[in-house]
Amino acid sequence: MSDPFFQPVSGMDLPRFAGVPTFMRLPHVAPDHARFGEVQIGLIGVPWDSGTTNRPGPRHGPRQLRDLSTMIRAQNGATGVRPFEAVNCADLGDVGPNPADIQDSMARITAFYDQVIAAGILPLTGGGDHLSSLPILRAVAKSGPVGMVHFDSHTDLFHSYFDGTMYTHGTPFRRAVEEGLLDPKRVVQIGIRGTAYDTEDRDFAKAEGIRIIPIEEYFARGPEDVMAEAREIVGTAPTYVSYDIDFVDPTFAPGTGTPEVGGPNSFEALQVARLLDGVNIVGADLVEVSPPFDQSGGTAFLGVSIMFEMLCVMAKAHAAAG
Amino acid sequence: MSDPFFQPVSGMDLPRFAGVPTFMRLPHVAPDHARFGEVQIGLIGVPWDSGTTNRPGPRHGPRQLRDLSTMIRAQNGATGVRPFEAVNCADLGDVGPNPADIQDSMARITAFYDQVIAAGILPLTGGGDHLSSLPILRAVAKSGPVGMVHFDSHTDLFHSYFDGTMYTHGTPFRRAVEEGLLDPKRVVQIGIRGTAYDTEDRDFAKAEGIRIIPIEEYFARGPEDVMAEAREIVGTAPTYVSYDIDFVDPTFAPGTGTPEVGGPNSFEALQVARLLDGVNIVGADLVEVSPPFDQSGGTAFLGVSIMFEMLCVMAKAHAAAG
Amino acid sequence: MSDPFFQPVSGMDLPRFAGVPTFMRLPHVAPDHARFGEVQIGLIGVPWDSGTTNRPGPRHGPRQLRDLSTMIRAQNGATGVRPFEAVNCADLGDVGPNPADIQDSMARITAFYDQVIAAGILPLTGGGDHLSSLPILRAVAKSGPVGMVHFDSHTDLFHSYFDGTMYTHGTPFRRAVEEGLLDPKRVVQIGIRGTAYDTEDRDFAKAEGIRIIPIEEYFARGPEDVMAEAREIVGTAPTYVSYDIDFVDPTFAPGTGTPEVGGPNSFEALQVARLLDGVNIVGADLVEVSPPFDQSGGTAFLGVSIMFEMLCVMAKAHAAAG
Amino acid sequence: MSDPFFQPVSGMDLPRFAGVPTFMRLPHVAPDHARFGEVQIGLIGVPWDSGTTNRPGPRHGPRQLRDLSTMIRAQNGATGVRPFEAVNCADLGDVGPNPADIQDSMARITAFYDQVIAAGILPLTGGGDHLSSLPILRAVAKSGPVGMVHFDSHTDLFHSYFDGTMYTHGTPFRRAVEEGLLDPKRVVQIGIRGTAYDTEDRDFAKAEGIRIIPIEEYFARGPEDVMAEAREIVGTAPTYVSYDIDFVDPTFAPGTGTPEVGGPNSFEALQVARLLDGVNIVGADLVEVSPPFDQSGGTAFLGVSIMFEMLCVMAKAHAAAG
Amino acid sequence: MSDPFFQPVSGMDLPRFAGVPTFMRLPHVAPDHARFGEVQIGLIGVPWDSGTTNRPGPRHGPRQLRDLSTMIRAQNGATGVRPFEAVNCADLGDVGPNPADIQDSMARITAFYDQVIAAGILPLTGGGDHLSSLPILRAVAKSGPVGMVHFDSHTDLFHSYFDGTMYTHGTPFRRAVEEGLLDPKRVVQIGIRGTAYDTEDRDFAKAEGIRIIPIEEYFARGPEDVMAEAREIVGTAPTYVSYDIDFVDPTFAPGTGTPEVGGPNSFEALQVARLLDGVNIVGADLVEVSPPFDQSGGTAFLGVSIMFEMLCVMAKAHAAAG
Amino acid sequence: MSDPFFQPVSGMDLPRFAGVPTFMRLPHVAPDHARFGEVQIGLIGVPWDSGTTNRPGPRHGPRQLRDLSTMIRAQNGATGVRPFEAVNCADLGDVGPNPADIQDSMARITAFYDQVIAAGILPLTGGGDHLSSLPILRAVAKSGPVGMVHFDSHTDLFHSYFDGTMYTHGTPFRRAVEEGLLDPKRVVQIGIRGTAYDTEDRDFAKAEGIRIIPIEEYFARGPEDVMAEAREIVGTAPTYVSYDIDFVDPTFAPGTGTPEVGGPNSFEALQVARLLDGVNIVGADLVEVSPPFDQSGGTAFLGVSIMFEMLCVMAKAHAAAG
Repeated sequence: MSDPFFQPVSGMDLPRFAGVPTFMRLPHVAPDHARFGEVQIGLIGVPWDSGTTNRPGPRHGPRQLRDLSTMIRAQNGATGVRPFEAVNCADLGDVGPNPADIQDSMARITAFYDQVIAAGILPLTGGGDHLSSLPILRAVAKSGPVGMVHFDSHTDLFHSYFDGTMYTHGTPFRRAVEEGLLDPKRVVQIGIRGTAYDTEDRDFAKAEGIRIIPIEEYFARGPEDVMAEAREIVGTAPTYVSYDIDFVDPTFAPGTGTPEVGGPNSFEALQVARLLDGVNIVGADLVEVSPPFDQSGGTAFLGVSIMFEMLCVMAKAHAAAG
Repeated sequence: MSDPFFQPVSGMDLPRFAGVPTFMRLPHVAPDHARFGEVQIGLIGVPWDSGTTNRPGPRHGPRQLRDLSTMIRAQNGATGVRPFEAVNCADLGDVGPNPADIQDSMARITAFYDQVIAAGILPLTGGGDHLSSLPILRAVAKSGPVGMVHFDSHTDLFHSYFDGTMYTHGTPFRRAVEEGLLDPKRVVQIGIRGTAYDTEDRDFAKAEGIRIIPIEEYFARGPEDVMAEAREIVGTAPTYVSYDIDFVDPTFAPGTGTPEVGGPNSFEALQVARLLDGVNIVGADLVEVSPPFDQSGGTAFLGVSIMFEMLCVMAKAHAAAG
Repeated sequence: MSDPFFQPVSGMDLPRFAGVPTFMRLPHVAPDHARFGEVQIGLIGVPWDSGTTNRPGPRHGPRQLRDLSTMIRAQNGATGVRPFEAVNCADLGDVGPNPADIQDSMARITAFYDQVIAAGILPLTGGGDHLSSLPILRAVAKSGPVGMVHFDSHTDLFHSYFDGTMYTHGTPFRRAVEEGLLDPKRVVQIGIRGTAYDTEDRDFAKAEGIRIIPIEEYFARGPEDVMAEAREIVGTAPTYVSYDIDFVDPTFAPGTGTPEVGGPNSFEALQVARLLDGVNIVGADLVEVSPPFDQSGGTAFLGVSIMFEMLCVMAKAHAAAG
Repeated sequence: MSDPFFQPVSGMDLPRFAGVPTFMRLPHVAPDHARFGEVQIGLIGVPWDSGTTNRPGPRHGPRQLRDLSTMIRAQNGATGVRPFEAVNCADLGDVGPNPADIQDSMARITAFYDQVIAAGILPLTGGGDHLSSLPILRAVAKSGPVGMVHFDSHTDLFHSYFDGTMYTHGTPFRRAVEEGLLDPKRVVQIGIRGTAYDTEDRDFAKAEGIRIIPIEEYFARGPEDVMAEAREIVGTAPTYVSYDIDFVDPTFAPGTGTPEVGGPNSFEALQVARLLDGVNIVGADLVEVSPPFDQSGGTAFLGVSIMFEMLCVMAKAHAAAG
Repeated sequence: MSDPFFQPVSGMDLPRFAGVPTFMRLPHVAPDHARFGEVQIGLIGVPWDSGTTNRPGPRHGPRQLRDLSTMIRAQNGATGVRPFEAVNCADLGDVGPNPADIQDSMARITAFYDQVIAAGILPLTGGGDHLSSLPILRAVAKSGPVGMVHFDSHTDLFHSYFDGTMYTHGTPFRRAVEEGLLDPKRVVQIGIRGTAYDTEDRDFAKAEGIRIIPIEEYFARGPEDVMAEAREIVGTAPTYVSYDIDFVDPTFAPGTGTPEVGGPNSFEALQVARLLDGVNIVGADLVEVSPPFDQSGGTAFLGVSIMFEMLCVMAKAHAAAG
Repeated sequence: MSDPFFQPVSGMDLPRFAGVPTFMRLPHVAPDHARFGEVQIGLIGVPWDSGTTNRPGPRHGPRQLRDLSTMIRAQNGATGVRPFEAVNCADLGDVGPNPADIQDSMARITAFYDQVIAAGILPLTGGGDHLSSLPILRAVAKSGPVGMVHFDSHTDLFHSYFDGTMYTHGTPFRRAVEEGLLDPKRVVQIGIRGTAYDTEDRDFAKAEGIRIIPIEEYFARGPEDVMAEAREIVGTAPTYVSYDIDFVDPTFAPGTGTPEVGGPNSFEALQVARLLDGVNIVGADLVEVSPPFDQSGGTAFLGVSIMFEMLCVMAKAHAAAG
């Protein structure tokens, strides 16, 4: 453990604004790198937004997330976890998408994650729009359906858009259930809100046993209670975590394509990730950060702060298991 | 009810970024349109800010509110109300102001609303600065003084500015009380805060029986309790609702001309509007959205989200009464 | 001629910031409108950018172009042409694309333009990315190949991207030549510049007889001389005009996805359009305006100013022919 | 001359970002200041835009002009003039307008300038919208009509707006001619362009003998030739200079309310002011800088750079005369 | 008391956007001004950020704080205090730093504050980065160590950066303790959070007896309870207040160089300052406002609102003592 | 030559927005990399701005330059040069500065460049403020004074600032001449303009034989003639090229700290670099790009486009020499 090669550069040595920006200033270890096999948690960018039906931009997410991630230091201020000492972390680079072909892009993404999973690396993804989660789940859940803790203002459970278009950022988890990648009984969706087309998505959730916790319930019960239920729903079996930045109130995270007014603040945005402690995470993503709608980078900074919280939970569990 | 002509375009059919933007993607039904007489709730823009003594901009409000309103879907996520099926809604267009003549502009506005009221249409306005409410009230309260629920950080009850200027966005409700348009005993002002010139406005409120709930009291009691009192104050008689976007904390609503630090967040911004349920609303406005101070459109999106909440309350009551 | 119905609203009557924004404040005449058949020049939005391989955004172009077009008055300051009195102009609305399906979107666009062409309306389009021109040409050139004056910094003549993807905003005119929509001998491309992948596109142009005028030649000869040659190349036969906003220097038009440094300024941007006078224009487009990269709207304002110049040329010719 | 009291603070002593920002870091000498009588050229702010019929904002101009003016050093780089050593310059402060009353504001402005003129001070104004020039001229031309060199993209010679509104930023010079403040035979307007309502303004100019040099002529002849004619037109009699920042191309000066595409660049923006050398300037203004439309301050920096060029011409003449 | 000379200009007389902007529209009374000796509380700008190891910008803070401070009125809306009537307040101007020499700048700052302290003026500073507090404390604590209430997300207690650099914005209070300017037993740091390098700073705090209240404890206990403890820690002996704007959540205060996600909102930002009531304040600062990272000015407006709250506490105590 | 390792990633394979951003998508070859010795031209970032006396920001330059450099393709559109095939190019990473210690930073920079020069690599730098050129020259000119072509609006030849501060971004070339790093007879400065403190810098230039070409002369003669003289001045002996982005007009390059109005446009910005063809370049830099003042990245894109032009000249010469 604590191999110097896998340590991030400290802002005490090299100012944060300096250097080629990798995720959290970790070494860049592409799949063809000599030390790829030693990575335990891999940070991956999926710069892709072709599933977006509204305002595009998340294809630019990974670059800005990397840029802002140079503000992250080595230790979790709240829990004291030092993830980079606990496990070997690295930036595995970006998956190269085909912005003009959705099926080709999904094939490319799944192929990349197949390599990652095959190497025994836990993937932590910076998206990309929410359709990205589907090709990732095809690799992560190859050996059987997984549970999911899903933070979002939308269910992303719709059947289709525009008279029969099946693959958009509003349909990934409908497809994932249909494809047997998710066990709907072990799926919980937290923070759902905003105006609705109709109840087609919620009817599907109900029929399949997916638990939806709308924002009104979330605020009434508080994050601790809600997350206790979430941990109970997914139990100790393998679980994926999918965190759409639009779970957070758009004032705290304006850089996203389909904002919904009236969500949690930034403190809670971190807190719910921290409360994943104990979940058996086999992969996680943070999606829908759209830099063109937040040039200040505040959304990306919040996004990487959330990624760091998830990383700490994953690293702690991995180190304990190891 | 539920006439197809009066249904908004769905984002499932036409992407939200497409199409000429009307309020909430409703049909544009100007007063000379054949179906004007069938409208039950009319959304109206008042692009006017000549009463602004500080930073101008609300004249650009209606256009940006319309633009962002294409993000609103057909169903209220929290209450399940589907207003466009309950009553006939339409975009009645903008009142044309004279930006270089305050009295002429007020006459134009009142004349437009006279038509609307005469047609039995409930007006829901997107402003415009707060002086807009005065010429609207001259039409709405033509047959007698109305009550008012007023969300704001300022009382807008001042006597005059700059040595005797009587018509500014800081004086509309002083004038409305003087003109007998408002029944001060049935007026409640919620969220008042910020540094003050003096107590001239509050002294007037006290003398007239207007109830002021300052922000400290609001936070101490919470929105549910405060709104229960507000509903009691206005009772079941005709009531106008005037919602200044600067009621909300300027971080959530930066696009406004006279922000005051330390207000409610966006969840509560919607919640208080939802808690108007039961009030006999004869007209409502959302004013002081100033696009030049929020190019991201976040303020306008919050603004139309609030308008949608008010619309749902109005539609539900109208349908129930109908 | 000069039917009051087809006249734009004047800023002397209704301030420019007021009213539901249609193109140049013209009436909104969708294909199902009673007076659709009387339109002579139709302004159409194509809010679509799925062919974009780099930075997306032009799907938001039509809305911002309409917004800024309210700054356009009735008379050309340089030529004195008053197009709205010369011919019946109208805003025909947007073509509804499918943002998650390229082929479906192209079919929708061609179908819309088939209606327009069938009605004898000259289409003037506000895009959209440059792939939009292909489905438009499929309608415009249905009866035989047309010539083209093409303002751009790129040739858009590539064979394919990403290992065989044939439909992107870098390939429309390669496809159009292959499909027999363009007569390459009557195509001229003006302003080509920037770093290059290789010479594959230019080799194709050379082989087919397409005339490329690179920016160095453009500056050396000046706009008048260059446009004289352009007019000679296309002659009097039917000609399409395709104007990519990235023809203009990115300082004057920052709101675009693939800028190239060192182009013409805004005066010349208008001048070259004005110098189309005499060309037999059967359709024109202004594409690649990307609002997320220019929140000030300056690019869109330049874009609609160029559209107005093209409109004046088209209207003058139409009136003369009529 | 060269009284230390009237010298600006040097950026070599106090960094430019430091200090309370006055115009060009000159002393603040309000009319009640002991040394007011010694001022020879007074820089004055008119933070007022109530005459604006389109996008407001110039009321914020003086503050941003002052802010950016701290970038101005003591010597003209092109001509070598050191104005602050040649004459006593000072910042006289702002005229306090009444943003909700046009007539009252004009009276306040004229009263302020009456004091300035009475003290023998040459006024150099930072506006404010263009209506500001009218009340200034009422003071400056009290003893008889003056000539005017007018840089602008609009003539500002309209009769009225909105059915009879006489005082807007589109009418000041029509009023000034009618009131005998300007001698139309000695007025030249340079840079006129953009789409036009009609020819009502130009017909008036023609009838009165005002010389209009449209942008096409300006570019064809070049600034030197055009300015030679301008100097000849105004001759050696007292002349006012009115410089609307929208004379400059909106890419170079985006911070303005009514931009017109296709104007001069920034080098020429300075050059034409420099070529006023020899004109008998009795007052000058730089108007229509609108900070809300250019948060970067580039427009204001160009604006104060133009003011500095005008100041150098005025100071050189004053010193020579003195 | 209540000398007219020391009263701020009212927005009812001169609109807030008008006039040369001093802090809160107070008179500008530099140390060489005739009435300097009568000032009781002095507002001072320290436009300096050479101690910044990350993103610079606070050197621009004082100018933007002054600009936004024109929005502050004369009376505290929550407490009713009217500070400008209670004591003589003035803007003492900026300390001129040397941006290219840290030691020289610190000497200049201390020299300026020595004058202020010698004149018996309580200094209220608008920074500047946090290193500014060190040279200020050298003047304020000249006669003995003071206590400190410190609002921040960082401890600023590090030993050094970059292999031995002792003076940065991360080290001022380590130096201040070492130099005997602060009594560590009477120092409380509130709001500490974010990722950490290591625990070197916290170990120092522990060893010296500095009380750190991390953000989790702050939220668990609430501002009233936390501030009660803070008042107890500092007691009635002389106390300095240092308020780093990054104490506040970066969504509410984006304009700062080293933001940390998950802090207090704007209401609490004011509330904690108000709860200083009773502390024996001998000086206060508001630092790290960085305008380049918040062009809207929202951060500066919050900053001056906090300064006004601190001013009210200081003025009330001063008046009571006087 | 044309080693695949040293080829940049093509946008035809991996979209430009994807991947960890190195300069021009070249391999990242730090000095400890196995293939460092094979590099022929090294692109280096110097993220440092401690010499800035006005508005800071260039410390963020290298990161944004790298980001935008992913828009650069493999071939020069104007000259046809393919530099990456001609010589081995690589991104050598950033020099780590000490933002709080100027002397330490200069020592670090010189030490880094000593390594580069020792390895026979031609350095092409992205700054950083202009003081960066001094420590670079200390390495580049180790074996004797070099000539210099210097594009700038300022001479940067001042003796000192703030009473004796010798190292700022206004003094590097005064120091370089004094230290014998530059041969003043072989130095030419092009584009000098803007207001001036005095003539101290120009007097020094005159005395030493440095040739200054002010902007008025530049525009009068044109870039070709000016550059012919420049090439003659530096001759065939070793020459450094220093390109301050503020040479370009601030409208084209707003992202800089000390802009001066009225400079060359973007076409000429590239053209003058292209006209360096034939100069014996031993190192080059592009400095003063300040991202906080141009969030759109347009300035950085222009900056890397200029760097690419210089790279092509350097690569062509190197290949010819090799």
